Amino acid sequence: MKGNCIVAQSGGPTAVINASACGVIQEALAHSEITGVYAAHNGILGVLNGEIFDLRQESRKTIEGLKTSPSAALGSCRYKVKSDADYAKILDVFTAHDIRYFFYIGGNDSMDTADKVARLAAQRGYEFRAMGVPKTIDNDLAFTDHCPGYGSVIKYLATMVMEAGRDTEAIYTTDTVNVIEAMGRNAGWIAAGTALARRNNEDAPHVILLPEVPFDKEAFKAKVRSYLDTIHRCVIVVSEGTKNPDGAYISEQKGDFARDAFGHTQLGGAAQYIKSLVETEVKVKARFAIPSTIQRNGIHWASLTDSREAYLVGRQAVIHAVKGVSGKMVTLERSPHRPYRCATGLADLAQVANGEKYFPKEWITPDGFFVTRDFFDYALPLIQGEVKPVMKEGLPEFMRFEKHFLQGE
Amino acid sequence: MKGNCIVAQSGGPTAVINASACGVIQEALAHSEITGVYAAHNGILGVLNGEIFDLRQESRKTIEGLKTSPSAALGSCRYKVKSDADYAKILDVFTAHDIRYFFYIGGNDSMDTADKVARLAAQRGYEFRAMGVPKTIDNDLAFTDHCPGYGSVIKYLATMVMEAGRDTEAIYTTDTVNVIEAMGRNAGWIAAGTALARRNNEDAPHVILLPEVPFDKEAFKAKVRSYLDTIHRCVIVVSEGTKNPDGAYISEQKGDFARDAFGHTQLGGAAQYIKSLVETEVKVKARFAIPSTIQRNGIHWASLTDSREAYLVGRQAVIHAVKGVSGKMVTLERSPHRPYRCATGLADLAQVANGEKYFPKEWITPDGFFVTRDFFDYALPLIQGEVKPVMKEGLPEFMRFEKHFLQGE
Repeated sequence: MKGNCIVAQSGGPTAVINASACGVIQEALAHSEITGVYAAHNGILGVLNGEIFDLRQESRKTIEGLKTSPSAALGSCRYKVKSDADYAKILDVFTAHDIRYFFYIGGNDSMDTADKVARLAAQRGYEFRAMGVPKTIDNDLAFTDHCPGYGSVIKYLATMVMEAGRDTEAIYTTDTVNVIEAMGRNAGWIAAGTALARRNNEDAPHVILLPEVPFDKEAFKAKVRSYLDTIHRCVIVVSEGTKNPDGAYISEQKGDFARDAFGHTQLGGAAQYIKSLVETEVKVKARFAIPSTIQRNGIHWASLTDSREAYLVGRQAVIHAVKGVSGKMVTLERSPHRPYRCATGLADLAQVANGEKYFPKEWITPDGFFVTRDFFDYALPLIQGEVKPVMKEGLPEFMRFEKHFLQGE
Repeated sequence: MKGNCIVAQSGGPTAVINASACGVIQEALAHSEITGVYAAHNGILGVLNGEIFDLRQESRKTIEGLKTSPSAALGSCRYKVKSDADYAKILDVFTAHDIRYFFYIGGNDSMDTADKVARLAAQRGYEFRAMGVPKTIDNDLAFTDHCPGYGSVIKYLATMVMEAGRDTEAIYTTDTVNVIEAMGRNAGWIAAGTALARRNNEDAPHVILLPEVPFDKEAFKAKVRSYLDTIHRCVIVVSEGTKNPDGAYISEQKGDFARDAFGHTQLGGAAQYIKSLVETEVKVKARFAIPSTIQRNGIHWASLTDSREAYLVGRQAVIHAVKGVSGKMVTLERSPHRPYRCATGLADLAQVANGEKYFPKEWITPDGFFVTRDFFDYALPLIQGEVKPVMKEGLPEFMRFEKHFLQGE
């Protein structure tokens, strides 16, 4: 099938989502079936707004630079496509530009969008193939062993915890407890990943608070005190999604912007809550850190394994689409044997869209404050190797597209 | 002069304070005048408490590992020596262990302590030499061009701002403003350092709030709006020490632990304050990040120039002391010519203790929201090169002393 392709990125950026875009773009440029290679600016919003730019006019160096540039260089969005009118508009724009291939890099919502556009195209009899490319630091997509973006966020956040943990180890006589807030609204994958920093009893983190474990204040205080009694300090990683036994987040943000575009409660303040609790009830001084979006964009310390897999799933999406596949997301399938190897597979977009991969309960230690060796076996292969950023005068140098926008239809 | 030496670290840890300890220890082990090489555990507290360990019993590999391990491996403290009884106790402990050389790695307070111990020793007729080794991420020590620890904190924080800046650039349609809080209680050196991330008008940071510039709310809001009008987003770096025109911090922490051991107000909340201000009065959604102690311990991304200079000032302190120098801090002296070169000098401990190096007013742009090219010329040489951490299974591996403590006197 001859025609143009479009690639878009959606949702929260990651350190390696651009590696996936690079894989899509470089592979698309190599196939004669794909005539034009376009990008939607800011995900599906760019399609709806007709903001589409031509990737063939970008230099090879810029495109290669995607591999060492964090966040979403095509632009991203959190716009949730809901109305039939939106879907009709999307397909109208695709039709106007003879776009026959759609590669959407994102999470559940993106897979849902790609799936519905493909179904509408089929209804209309418009020849069209939609492929999903997985991306999320949350690691919660179903049907894939893990998600590109996850290895890098935990490699970086675990390193932060190691380094800040040494700070507490040095200055515990005044700053006795440190609380570091990890992203992860619904699942503890990211917070759990910081466990990799801990190689012995002295090492941080000492306590991990996961959304999967209802927060037991008394047990927590006892746990912190047990560390104060033995090693005189305690470093705590708290997931932003940690909840009280009644199901409410331990600290919910107030104010005009307390909900995001999808109506999700905006979290924040989990670290401050734990810090205050420790100071008030355990009676030692505590600090806190909120790495926020810094943690998910750390290309200077990204996992090379993760980056390569992100690139691979991008390429594979194009390879499959050209062969006639549509309505699928490329998955990562881990070999059951050691050493770690990973191949790609395919899953139905609709199934991915409606699925969610929970953090396994059996990987949480009986006390609820740490993770088991099985988690280490799962996660360690994902953080191996380091991406080497392009450097300029002591700091990284990131690419930025020139963005030659297509003129109106 | 034959005798034992002791080395101690004090104050807030840095990524490279251990490189200074490494310089002191390796040089001390190489001089026959220095018989025993000891460490005070947790700075001067270790002397007062008689917690002294023998560095000759640590392996060469452990000592070399100091160069690639963040924070203060000897332990640090914020204890301010004030009473005559404390000073007498310190000298009693030194005398009991025949300690003739004292190397104190720290900031103003440490220089003051070292100076006063040396003066008391002279009064008592106890042959003794005290040397200061500069360390502070705050970069506010007088008589030195810059302070070891500063180059690394700004290299890392500038990288965080670059990376998180790309996040805002990608997802500005929902997360329009991002606020990142920089350390620096009294001076804007650290916040200013993030300016290095900005190579053109698109790049973050767009606004820097410095303690040197009284916070002008209306001018700030207008500045933010000007970025929203042009590039549709704004990344703001706010120093924790930013003050209102009345001299009060824009956000002071409340509660039982609002003051540290020195009676300084504990800061925090500057980023939340700016975030709330932007949401309430500029009416766009804002996020915030507080890297806290993570920023000062980033050995995985530390400046090689900074690390080498930290090592150098440690070595030079020993070399000078063995030659008979006492009561001095080793300084860094920048060659006036390019390319950048740095040699060491000496300054009186008492003068350093009472001095402070302010951020030059003429390096702040007329609008008060950024820094000039002169600052770039000053700071860029300090962030060149990267320390390569020792790696193990995808994460750094840091050393930890075995700590063979001396038995009671």
